[in-house]
Amino acid sequence: MNWVDEGALYSQIGVFLREDLGRGDITSQAIIERNTRARGRFLAGEKMIVAGLEAAEEVFMTLDSEQQLEAFASDGEEIEGGKVIARTTGFADVLLAGERVALNLLQRLSGIATLTHQYVQAIEGTTAHIVDSRKTTPGLRMLEKYAVLLGGGRNHRFGLDDGVIIKANHIAVAGGVAEAVRKARERLGQLHKIEVQVGNEREVRDALKQEADVLLLTDLAAEEVARLVTMARELSPAVTIECSGNIALDQVRSYAEAGIDLISIGALTNSARAMNLSFQMQLSSG
Amino acid sequence: MNWVDEGALYSQIGVFLREDLGRGDITSQAIIERNTRARGRFLAGEKMIVAGLEAAEEVFMTLDSEQQLEAFASDGEEIEGGKVIARTTGFADVLLAGERVALNLLQRLSGIATLTHQYVQAIEGTTAHIVDSRKTTPGLRMLEKYAVLLGGGRNHRFGLDDGVIIKANHIAVAGGVAEAVRKARERLGQLHKIEVQVGNEREVRDALKQEADVLLLTDLAAEEVARLVTMARELSPAVTIECSGNIALDQVRSYAEAGIDLISIGALTNSARAMNLSFQMQLSSG
Amino acid sequence: MNWVDEGALYSQIGVFLREDLGRGDITSQAIIERNTRARGRFLAGEKMIVAGLEAAEEVFMTLDSEQQLEAFASDGEEIEGGKVIARTTGFADVLLAGERVALNLLQRLSGIATLTHQYVQAIEGTTAHIVDSRKTTPGLRMLEKYAVLLGGGRNHRFGLDDGVIIKANHIAVAGGVAEAVRKARERLGQLHKIEVQVGNEREVRDALKQEADVLLLTDLAAEEVARLVTMARELSPAVTIECSGNIALDQVRSYAEAGIDLISIGALTNSARAMNLSFQMQLSSG
Amino acid sequence: MNWVDEGALYSQIGVFLREDLGRGDITSQAIIERNTRARGRFLAGEKMIVAGLEAAEEVFMTLDSEQQLEAFASDGEEIEGGKVIARTTGFADVLLAGERVALNLLQRLSGIATLTHQYVQAIEGTTAHIVDSRKTTPGLRMLEKYAVLLGGGRNHRFGLDDGVIIKANHIAVAGGVAEAVRKARERLGQLHKIEVQVGNEREVRDALKQEADVLLLTDLAAEEVARLVTMARELSPAVTIECSGNIALDQVRSYAEAGIDLISIGALTNSARAMNLSFQMQLSSG
Amino acid sequence: MNWVDEGALYSQIGVFLREDLGRGDITSQAIIERNTRARGRFLAGEKMIVAGLEAAEEVFMTLDSEQQLEAFASDGEEIEGGKVIARTTGFADVLLAGERVALNLLQRLSGIATLTHQYVQAIEGTTAHIVDSRKTTPGLRMLEKYAVLLGGGRNHRFGLDDGVIIKANHIAVAGGVAEAVRKARERLGQLHKIEVQVGNEREVRDALKQEADVLLLTDLAAEEVARLVTMARELSPAVTIECSGNIALDQVRSYAEAGIDLISIGALTNSARAMNLSFQMQLSSG
Amino acid sequence: MNWVDEGALYSQIGVFLREDLGRGDITSQAIIERNTRARGRFLAGEKMIVAGLEAAEEVFMTLDSEQQLEAFASDGEEIEGGKVIARTTGFADVLLAGERVALNLLQRLSGIATLTHQYVQAIEGTTAHIVDSRKTTPGLRMLEKYAVLLGGGRNHRFGLDDGVIIKANHIAVAGGVAEAVRKARERLGQLHKIEVQVGNEREVRDALKQEADVLLLTDLAAEEVARLVTMARELSPAVTIECSGNIALDQVRSYAEAGIDLISIGALTNSARAMNLSFQMQLSSG
Repeated sequence: MNWVDEGALYSQIGVFLREDLGRGDITSQAIIERNTRARGRFLAGEKMIVAGLEAAEEVFMTLDSEQQLEAFASDGEEIEGGKVIARTTGFADVLLAGERVALNLLQRLSGIATLTHQYVQAIEGTTAHIVDSRKTTPGLRMLEKYAVLLGGGRNHRFGLDDGVIIKANHIAVAGGVAEAVRKARERLGQLHKIEVQVGNEREVRDALKQEADVLLLTDLAAEEVARLVTMARELSPAVTIECSGNIALDQVRSYAEAGIDLISIGALTNSARAMNLSFQMQLSSG
Repeated sequence: MNWVDEGALYSQIGVFLREDLGRGDITSQAIIERNTRARGRFLAGEKMIVAGLEAAEEVFMTLDSEQQLEAFASDGEEIEGGKVIARTTGFADVLLAGERVALNLLQRLSGIATLTHQYVQAIEGTTAHIVDSRKTTPGLRMLEKYAVLLGGGRNHRFGLDDGVIIKANHIAVAGGVAEAVRKARERLGQLHKIEVQVGNEREVRDALKQEADVLLLTDLAAEEVARLVTMARELSPAVTIECSGNIALDQVRSYAEAGIDLISIGALTNSARAMNLSFQMQLSSG
Repeated sequence: MNWVDEGALYSQIGVFLREDLGRGDITSQAIIERNTRARGRFLAGEKMIVAGLEAAEEVFMTLDSEQQLEAFASDGEEIEGGKVIARTTGFADVLLAGERVALNLLQRLSGIATLTHQYVQAIEGTTAHIVDSRKTTPGLRMLEKYAVLLGGGRNHRFGLDDGVIIKANHIAVAGGVAEAVRKARERLGQLHKIEVQVGNEREVRDALKQEADVLLLTDLAAEEVARLVTMARELSPAVTIECSGNIALDQVRSYAEAGIDLISIGALTNSARAMNLSFQMQLSSG
Repeated sequence: MNWVDEGALYSQIGVFLREDLGRGDITSQAIIERNTRARGRFLAGEKMIVAGLEAAEEVFMTLDSEQQLEAFASDGEEIEGGKVIARTTGFADVLLAGERVALNLLQRLSGIATLTHQYVQAIEGTTAHIVDSRKTTPGLRMLEKYAVLLGGGRNHRFGLDDGVIIKANHIAVAGGVAEAVRKARERLGQLHKIEVQVGNEREVRDALKQEADVLLLTDLAAEEVARLVTMARELSPAVTIECSGNIALDQVRSYAEAGIDLISIGALTNSARAMNLSFQMQLSSG
Repeated sequence: MNWVDEGALYSQIGVFLREDLGRGDITSQAIIERNTRARGRFLAGEKMIVAGLEAAEEVFMTLDSEQQLEAFASDGEEIEGGKVIARTTGFADVLLAGERVALNLLQRLSGIATLTHQYVQAIEGTTAHIVDSRKTTPGLRMLEKYAVLLGGGRNHRFGLDDGVIIKANHIAVAGGVAEAVRKARERLGQLHKIEVQVGNEREVRDALKQEADVLLLTDLAAEEVARLVTMARELSPAVTIECSGNIALDQVRSYAEAGIDLISIGALTNSARAMNLSFQMQLSSG
Repeated sequence: MNWVDEGALYSQIGVFLREDLGRGDITSQAIIERNTRARGRFLAGEKMIVAGLEAAEEVFMTLDSEQQLEAFASDGEEIEGGKVIARTTGFADVLLAGERVALNLLQRLSGIATLTHQYVQAIEGTTAHIVDSRKTTPGLRMLEKYAVLLGGGRNHRFGLDDGVIIKANHIAVAGGVAEAVRKARERLGQLHKIEVQVGNEREVRDALKQEADVLLLTDLAAEEVARLVTMARELSPAVTIECSGNIALDQVRSYAEAGIDLISIGALTNSARAMNLSFQMQLSSG
């Protein structure tokens, strides 16, 4: 991650900790003696692609700048259930203060990476790529898109400002595919790629006539997708084609084999279940 | 929601919008004429408990203070697939700028409310209550706990500062159940309830001897829970008893019937899948 | 103090310094040569319980991360007038920039700790405890409650969110003591202690019938307090009883001897006078 | 107050409310029905100069933009004990949420205004003015200096950046009065007044020789002050002279009669006691 | 401007006003009676393209939400010297508090728009477009790029995150033009345009072989540019070509006539002189 | 620069970097291998007074706390074109991320320092001083006034709160020069210097009669200035006199020779052109 990501991550984790700690951990304050030292370890409860170890370390370092994790796996690695993925030694109250936020991040991000990995495996050997979407958890987009990368997926645009995609709602108010693409090309000049949603042969033709760079096929059956892909490639061999729309894990290969370049899966970031991970502490001997 | 919630929500939604908009929606800027007006409606794609309509309205009002939602359902209501749950009229670029953030919130919060509702229904007729946990999405705790309420659950503590729960990791470093509860009672005085995790008969006895107010049973089979509940109630009829630990929807009733007061379910907030909801726009006639 | 306190303190002290420095200390800029080094010492002008030394050190460290205090007393210690409580060596302009904010904190917090100590001494030998209130200086609650601890007092709730106290104004709008306690118990469940203000025998009975955990007696004479305490303990031996209401230093023992558990004193934080403390500088030789 | 003050005040009051409310007022949430309306009134418990009514109104308006105070006194007015100084009608939970912060501000600021007024009365008929100092509560300087104005005092500089005062600590590191004033004059040019602390005849002469505009006499007996004032006026009839240093209310007139222009009193802002003010609520009939 | 721009602008103007006002306008506070009303008008002292009127209005509305400008020209309009471009009526102290910030914005932005307009006129009739650069004033990029649009120019990328340009420094560390473009294409996939700086025939060939979308020619004479443009168009007729590098107003046409698509001019935003504009006030009669 | 400046500078540079980086430098991310190290050097393209080297270093240190500049010139030094003024070694992506912001600051601040130096040289040998104004770039006042100092100029007031200047617009609403100065003197007491704009003999007399400390002559010819200076000095030998009003470089000496103390030049900060400076990188060998 670059400076902006790290700076943003650092300040986000401060927000996450304040959300959980409020005015402070009253349980630890009451029962743990000041300066008690302890050891803790993160244990995987099932097979998964790990994601979030750097974020988890950042949680503890935000609480105590000298509190590092010793990791036994790295972000993006596939591990088996039962594996200790990291351990750390430090003040007991720091470990207890950071435990829940660190676990919440690790469980969610590993869930996303693992689900992404399953989709990527499902289309192995085809020329298609799994990409994410803007269907991310509000506030967590950078982290969640990072987890998609770790699972083997690719990132689509990060927001409304770094890519042009003309979807059905735009088309409805802009007066049709041809008109929408024409305007985008005219006003944005040659410095942006233009992607447009198309739903039938006529729209494919309109989009390509206006020199759209990328076609988006949404909520269509795999056979219909295959038909439109073939037609589009005949008109414009270099066009990039993406499909999307609640494509389930057991359907995704049929889309990949239809000749699609990119398959966008919203579920990667909005419906992955949390992985089973726990944190176990004990007194540090000495 | 009270002032603090609303103030916090308002500022969070600004963060969510900036995350998605960055320097602005370049697609709309290029293809939508300024001041074009449009209508949009939110459509449920499946049966669900709706949650997040107030938040979705706040998204549009943050973009344009006069952009209100006309809702046809209210937060917490159960609706069927196919229902239009709200509509709105306004500037087309405002609707397009807010669409994704509003949907991301609605889909996630409705997912949580719906899953909570399923758990609540599963224990209907017993004296137990479904409660949430701190296993929430970092940054979204207030909203997610609100969705749990809408689904019929109850809220546990909001953070480490507004409730005392002595868990296994605390006990490991504090030197046992009896010692931990004793210290908490001594240092916090009579102004807090003290909850403590116990795993066997001896710990139940130790906890009750030190006047713990609430017992927490984690990762135990339902029969074991029943046995410890019976024993604890004999020693202290007024004690409150909670259980937790990856309790699945089809197991939850057996725990409720074991005489438990509170069943804490982390999956409500960390593993609910997004509900199927969409936003459809068209030009506003006139 | 834990992470949250320290993080909050650190950012508060930045605010305090900016309040005093504005665009910078124009006097020092004009007359002190860059890199001039100096020594400074904090001198107590009267007997007191010292409070705020950690905060004062944080003031200088915020200005220059290497500027530490060498303390000759510790927070909470009782010292005599004439004692040098800390000294520091560093850049002269840093010492001059931090002097006033450091003194303002030390003088105020020591004033609170010293007044608390006087109240605590006045009830020595009884079973009562002196507690603070929400009558703190806006913006300084954490620091002022910390000073109360240093003076030997206990902390009451930190805000409206971490404790339930039903006062006269609540009762006036909620329809009486019995109704208010009943609703609180019903809606908050078993996870919170409920404290309620009562003013006569009937209200004591109503409160205890609804299982209030703590009774608050406000603005009553010591004899009346004694009478209600006796009555309440007969009905419910385990109930906690607190009194409050402008109780002066020379009256406090009579309340403590009435069998009260907690005596809340607003004056600790809103009417303590500043202690006499000064900062004296000289050129550092070499 | 001008724009900057109001903007700053508005954002400060948000901070003060968050400090008290945390995640929300759980007592009101539990026992007050939504939309219950109530009346409240602020009652003076003793004679005082009122200060903070505008700030108190801002507290309620921050919680609910339509919640105004109807004031029966104005900031700076002297009132008798027993007087209702303001009333307001609104949602009961809003009144309860703002009550404590509003009272904390009113009690403190009225305390400052009242103490200032006593000092001002004590020197009535002389040519001296009572001025404040930088011995204010960290974070509250603007409000506290405003209260001094209301009590009839004048404001000294607001911070280290809007006025030059060379005090003993500056002189100790700058090499004497003459050298310090000379440097200040040379580097700051003709655009600033230069004030300097002097303690004896030689320093008065040195300061005036270097064209200091204002002399500051600190911690001297009134007779010594009178002697130095006479001497200074002979050398420079137009020089402004200020004195300071824990001057008690019963001593202040002797300083004023010594011919001083300005008397700076730190106690105004760091040792005023809170005035007796309360807030009483009842249900709004209809 | 869209929501993000307006929100950002609003908060920036608050920063600009605080920079100028500090703790408040002490001159107005001293000599203008409260509630004095006045009229003010903005007068152009020379011919210019006006830019910044919306920003200037925002300055006054930030100070007083009812203080609107009545504009007699609109952003982007060419006006003659001597023209009154806007007037406003309001509180005298508000007008005096906003005057300087409003003028500073108007003078600078009009300077940029006017200089841009001169460049645009200089290449009239050619197929080239004048575009801006990242050589903007730190903190003012959005406003300055808006002024370029008003002057008839086009905007290049807004930052490092919304466009790929591989410049000489990138090439130096990435191992040559071919390698750099190849990597960018491989890692960014089909969703971004790739622009690359080239300086000679070989680099043009390398870039086009790797399917660069845009070529950037920097610091070359117009004839050399013409030669490379011709060569590039033969290899790839659809390639977009940009030039840059301190191109003066009297040279720009020769570059436009060389067949260039985009001419980037850093001076538009980093070397435009402030336009002559003043603000004149008088008492409002009545 | 003191703490406030440095703290403010540090946070400003974070803002400037985020403005340029947005969600991150996608070009470097795509083509530079992680941990690639490179060298870079800043090269002056023309003769100038350098300003901004400390700020440029801060840019790189904000990105990577270990990234220092090795400077071969210091802020305020005059250098020739062709000189390498600083170099640095570090991660290639850090250098590329900071390059543009560092250059934008250096070019602008050096432009201001260089123009100031030209004005200062033009009046060499007279008793006048060149001073800046509030005609600075919004958001950059501290940095720009620092550049004026480096060029040999002096700083006028920093904002509306740290100096009293009664200008024509104040006079228009306050009822004349005499009345305005009288009020200022009465309300501000002896702690501020009072400067007032005067345009003719009568106003000079009025101002001096009310004991104005500084006279401001604006938009007058040099001969007229000379006449009024002579007259003013006869009435009040110690009065300070300033002139302003678009005074060009080739006219400034005639004003200085008219006996003026201060000449205020807005163009220093609002019309200086950017200096020619570049940053050149190469791979770090080893």
